Amino acid sequence: MNFSELLQKRRAVRDYEDRAVPLKVVEELLQDATLAPSASNNQPCRFSVVQCRKTIRALSDESRANLIRDNEEKKIQLSPEYISYLKNEQTNVFYNAPCLIYIAGARQVRTLEVDCALAASYIMFAAADRGLATCWVAMGANIRDPQLRAQLGFDENHRIVAPLIVGYPAAVPAASARRAPQIMRVITEAR
Amino acid sequence: MNFSELLQKRRAVRDYEDRAVPLKVVEELLQDATLAPSASNNQPCRFSVVQCRKTIRALSDESRANLIRDNEEKKIQLSPEYISYLKNEQTNVFYNAPCLIYIAGARQVRTLEVDCALAASYIMFAAADRGLATCWVAMGANIRDPQLRAQLGFDENHRIVAPLIVGYPAAVPAASARRAPQIMRVITEAR
Repeated sequence: MNFSELLQKRRAVRDYEDRAVPLKVVEELLQDATLAPSASNNQPCRFSVVQCRKTIRALSDESRANLIRDNEEKKIQLSPEYISYLKNEQTNVFYNAPCLIYIAGARQVRTLEVDCALAASYIMFAAADRGLATCWVAMGANIRDPQLRAQLGFDENHRIVAPLIVGYPAAVPAASARRAPQIMRVITEAR
Repeated sequence: MNFSELLQKRRAVRDYEDRAVPLKVVEELLQDATLAPSASNNQPCRFSVVQCRKTIRALSDESRANLIRDNEEKKIQLSPEYISYLKNEQTNVFYNAPCLIYIAGARQVRTLEVDCALAASYIMFAAADRGLATCWVAMGANIRDPQLRAQLGFDENHRIVAPLIVGYPAAVPAASARRAPQIMRVITEAR
């Protein structure tokens, strides 16, 4: 697929086939992600791959509980609709995706957010290029339980930046609307 | 170009031909960048394009001065080699690139860094796809002078996340070394 096709094809997908992503393919995505640039080529990204539905559900429940608590403690402000979605025991914030990739790194890395976001974009493109779909589920990042973090191989010094779900799309939604690029200024050569 | 070729071809380039990037091409890159995902499809990215060498030099000088001052005030800690590079009046932190794109957005957007980084990765791929090269010059983000910020169309409420230089590469360096993906855990379905 050429890049302009890929640009059009990459979509946030929230509905997946009940079909596992072969681990070999996940490893290819992560291999591609290593090619992403990082500040001073520091390569701070650490990955954890979850292909167990029970664990994905536990991670969803942990994230839901933490978001609800943060909202109650006024650390964040979520809409009533969103809170009722989170309070629903049926809610899986990772939808029905068969695979979840966490991108994290050491908290002290100043550029961790952008470094991980760049790796995430590589994974999203690399997945789309293979007929897979992804979605960055920001609400799935709130994993504080030490046992769950240990399962993921993350200690208290790691910060989770990007939870990406990956799978074969059951339905591909229409592209969401985009505004024209918001160009504030174009400064051209004085003549 | 297909995506795996593009993956290999995208490179941080610091040496450019003395040849302007047509504004139409820059606009295409920014159009492609609008397809990047953003949290809640909020599309917070704001762009400013500088194709005037005198202004690029002024932005470099402003960034250099602020980095030197921040280092003296112990807000950041730069190596002596780096400081002497910055103190050299000949230093242009944007190398000899003919075009500079700033990606910025409103400070209060919680996800601004990752949203802008995703847009930056789209621009880097879209540029590579057109035979252009780019480099994210983090040290070029330190623009505080109100007059320069006004020229860029940014007020005090905007935060500059990604300064990207764009141009036709004079020399393409070898790919910088990458470690294997650092996979902390793979959690597979219990059987």
